[in-house]
Amino acid sequence: MADYTFYTNPMSRGQIARWALHEVEADYDQELVDWSAKSADFLAANPMGKVPTLIHHANEGPRVVSEAAAVCLYLAEMHPEAELLPDDTQMADYYRWTFFCAGPVDQALTAKALGFGPSDARQEGLVSFGNFERLIATLDHLLEDRMWVCGERFTMADVYVGSSIDWGLNFGLLPPNESFVAYTERCQARSAYKEAKAIDGALIAKSDKA
Amino acid sequence: MADYTFYTNPMSRGQIARWALHEVEADYDQELVDWSAKSADFLAANPMGKVPTLIHHANEGPRVVSEAAAVCLYLAEMHPEAELLPDDTQMADYYRWTFFCAGPVDQALTAKALGFGPSDARQEGLVSFGNFERLIATLDHLLEDRMWVCGERFTMADVYVGSSIDWGLNFGLLPPNESFVAYTERCQARSAYKEAKAIDGALIAKSDKA
Repeated sequence: MADYTFYTNPMSRGQIARWALHEVEADYDQELVDWSAKSADFLAANPMGKVPTLIHHANEGPRVVSEAAAVCLYLAEMHPEAELLPDDTQMADYYRWTFFCAGPVDQALTAKALGFGPSDARQEGLVSFGNFERLIATLDHLLEDRMWVCGERFTMADVYVGSSIDWGLNFGLLPPNESFVAYTERCQARSAYKEAKAIDGALIAKSDKA
Repeated sequence: MADYTFYTNPMSRGQIARWALHEVEADYDQELVDWSAKSADFLAANPMGKVPTLIHHANEGPRVVSEAAAVCLYLAEMHPEAELLPDDTQMADYYRWTFFCAGPVDQALTAKALGFGPSDARQEGLVSFGNFERLIATLDHLLEDRMWVCGERFTMADVYVGSSIDWGLNFGLLPPNESFVAYTERCQARSAYKEAKAIDGALIAKSDKA
């Protein structure tokens, strides 16, 4: 049995986890989830019925991780030899920007995709992203003057933050600011990114033909 | 100068970070943020203008952490002597449930507070929480059979997950399931929780009188 069982669907946030799996060169078996017929094994692992869901077949028994950002950070911890963990001086940025994307950015882009936005100051106080303009300015400010989220070195935070920006640009939910495009291009040049996207791309092409 | 400068407001997610600061017995100075007149120092640290924002005055220079969940996990790392980090076997739950609350739970409870909810299967596929019922059942399933998020031992994940459930119950956004109430009571019994809430409670009482 492989070290990991990876429940995914090629057109989902599972793409983020696959990129992370390839960054750490994990040994994994893939289980494609059929939205209309989710297996009992899958639902037992994750009652939310969401992908990505990862089962790590550890010595003491199976461990389940879900939420794309959690999968990324967990894999970095399990594979320190991949050198994707932050050092002490990078840890503030590592957590800050991963959670910024998992919370406010995800909430803002989802709201935009649904055609919903805060309409007054009270609503802006409630939503975690405040308003779109401030969110975009904050991301732009972050990325305009650094190579990677934690500075000069690529870390697992970039897999998650890079995926968020990539998604936002692809779906027209983020404006094509130079800082976003250049950062995304740096991410896309990673060999693990290319390997992972090639697999999901082939799966999507196959299902389109079916 | 204290080790940390803590920008907060007593009626905000800053309460989560204060609990975390007290759990690790951090040495911090508090800066109360006036929503109507945010200081330049504060906005330079966090262009989102959100609290909590924490500045760690580290040897190599200041480090900024924002997003309540990131502040929690960062503090656990900076203060290993507080023993709030997960061990290897607890790490999957530690990340999984912290991100579950920072993403889907926050998004679901915010949507509920705004009177918004996904109206069809397409919208359920877009929002990270799917639908309220499944989210609540997942949280209930998690908490009904374990003491803390990672099992028998309290970790920093409980500060964030506990705060999320506490918030949901206080604002009537989560139903008063026995598992939620009992878990929240275990959290409220922590001395750091009591210390932190006493400080924010006193600040709120003072501003109500002003």
